[in-house]
Amino acid sequence: MKIGILGGGQLARMIALSGYPLAQQFIILDPSRDAGAVKLGEHLQGQYDDPALLAELAQRADVVTYEFENVPASAAKYLTEHTVIYPPAKALEVSQDRLIEKNFLHDLDIETAPFAAVNNLQELRQAMQSIAYPAILKSRRFGYDGKGQVRLNCENDLEAAWEAMQNAPSIIEGFVPFEREISIIAVRSPSNEIAFYPVSENQHRGGILRVAQCRHNDPAQQLAEKYAADLIKALDYVGVIALEMFEVNGQLLANEFAPRVHNSGHWSIEGAVSSQFENHLRAILDLPLGSTQANGYSAMVNFIGNNPNPTQVLAIPNAHLHCYDKSSRKSRKVAHATICSHDKTLFEQSLQQLIQLAEDYDDS
Amino acid sequence: MKIGILGGGQLARMIALSGYPLAQQFIILDPSRDAGAVKLGEHLQGQYDDPALLAELAQRADVVTYEFENVPASAAKYLTEHTVIYPPAKALEVSQDRLIEKNFLHDLDIETAPFAAVNNLQELRQAMQSIAYPAILKSRRFGYDGKGQVRLNCENDLEAAWEAMQNAPSIIEGFVPFEREISIIAVRSPSNEIAFYPVSENQHRGGILRVAQCRHNDPAQQLAEKYAADLIKALDYVGVIALEMFEVNGQLLANEFAPRVHNSGHWSIEGAVSSQFENHLRAILDLPLGSTQANGYSAMVNFIGNNPNPTQVLAIPNAHLHCYDKSSRKSRKVAHATICSHDKTLFEQSLQQLIQLAEDYDDS
Repeated sequence: MKIGILGGGQLARMIALSGYPLAQQFIILDPSRDAGAVKLGEHLQGQYDDPALLAELAQRADVVTYEFENVPASAAKYLTEHTVIYPPAKALEVSQDRLIEKNFLHDLDIETAPFAAVNNLQELRQAMQSIAYPAILKSRRFGYDGKGQVRLNCENDLEAAWEAMQNAPSIIEGFVPFEREISIIAVRSPSNEIAFYPVSENQHRGGILRVAQCRHNDPAQQLAEKYAADLIKALDYVGVIALEMFEVNGQLLANEFAPRVHNSGHWSIEGAVSSQFENHLRAILDLPLGSTQANGYSAMVNFIGNNPNPTQVLAIPNAHLHCYDKSSRKSRKVAHATICSHDKTLFEQSLQQLIQLAEDYDDS
Repeated sequence: MKIGILGGGQLARMIALSGYPLAQQFIILDPSRDAGAVKLGEHLQGQYDDPALLAELAQRADVVTYEFENVPASAAKYLTEHTVIYPPAKALEVSQDRLIEKNFLHDLDIETAPFAAVNNLQELRQAMQSIAYPAILKSRRFGYDGKGQVRLNCENDLEAAWEAMQNAPSIIEGFVPFEREISIIAVRSPSNEIAFYPVSENQHRGGILRVAQCRHNDPAQQLAEKYAADLIKALDYVGVIALEMFEVNGQLLANEFAPRVHNSGHWSIEGAVSSQFENHLRAILDLPLGSTQANGYSAMVNFIGNNPNPTQVLAIPNAHLHCYDKSSRKSRKVAHATICSHDKTLFEQSLQQLIQLAEDYDDS
């Protein structure tokens, strides 16, 4: 089968690497000549809404998927009409707009932090009558890794914050004094097979994920699975989905979902019987899903900014390195490494070494 | 780094798939336009002793390795002189010739079945004065998967057997009434780090490997490691090496070694902390070796002749499929699948299902 992928970054790269053993071939649409995945398939170089390239992709790919949620609506519409696209366009529509997303979650009785739509300074002032400080003002669209977000600590911040949004339609969200951040990766096939990975416990800094650790028998697992299942059902979803949540006083508040493989599930490459990448492919090809069971203790650490020296990473017992073939650049995710072991002591020692090493290379 | 590989079949393919996460790039020399690995790197299409292609490979690759032992001596010599080639040419010289190989093992006090050189019918008759029937007559060079071999059951078979060899310099080996066949995969880096995988217990039929199962705490492990270590030392070896042995009355008799990643180690992709493919790369790049520890119970089953239906393979709990992107052809290894689990009952059930499925697709 030929699988089209919109986007040729590290997620597409890891999807493609998982697809070769299943005899899959890839056609990758990405504007960048050097994108990390393009060596692993045919490269259609151009914009995501280029009509000629979309037509070629639709004609030649048996199924199309994507590695990021900001696929232009026109591209999603065209692909939906002319080929099979998984996850479905509906998941893109909802996740592309933070306000629509939050309302969608709310309608499914999935708890969230308090939020309100903001289209001007007046609406912002009004919303802050009922939302407590601190709060976060976010553009409704095109935000990722903490971009397009401003924190409001008191009334005096309102004007500058709104100015920073440059009149973009926005959403204000109450800041959640969370105890921890978790995410759940789930997957569904067209045959309605559904599987859930153990939840990941995630540490962000500067809006960027740093560490994600697989949690066994986590008390939040059951509710996280229920939320993910409700979301999957409502979206008639196919493929891997990630739902990020805050835990506050034993409650789970959904933050956002990503209709794709997700950074917080990278531990699954070594840490689960079948990785999120393999299961995303199994799902979109309607093959039986693989087991999502964890292989002992595992965690993932991102390398941000600078490519690490492989010798240093691989000297850490049970470390695996995953480079994205990207040049070093400030705040850029260039690689990740995982630790996976059945020996808890070894796992914890190695993880601490890896976190320390990643700090050394971190430029953000 | 750029890694050159002589040969673009499934072994090169799995080496390359392991190399992408380490940010390695590949240049693959193979005469076939459609070889399974060539999509994963740059393809130099041509013969293995083509002087211009070898010159290009030597100039552009930081290190060259190979996926088969029948690399022409002239190519090995050229690459040794003009770049770095691992495993070293000496390993090729020895393993390319069954007689040299057996003498080499003998000189290292590694036990083998009785053998003798045979260059004509008279030498064959003479050798069979001291070797018991049944015995196997093998061409000294270019044999694999049981090709170039004739079994002798009694004196009457001698003439026809020698005729079948078409005067090729040969070796006669006493047939070993073995209890089982095992192999050990070992790996060494230029920094003299050495690691051994748990031995594999192997089942051949028609000279082709069918099933290889990882053995935990096998009584043969210690002696197998000693033999492999002696071999590695004598060859000043770098990379992955496989040593195949027969077990007879608690004794291990070495059959042959392969200076490369090996079919009996394919279970290590999912079944070990670091696979033989990753460790081969770590070794030839002089990176720290990865752990060779097994992830629970695991085994590999080959698909011979016909490509299996992925749905059937992946419906087996904990099965992983590895297709080689080859068309179906009689007696051809086209794919393998592994089973890996910490649950012994699940493992055994799945393995039996997988073996049965492979039989259904087997045309040999």
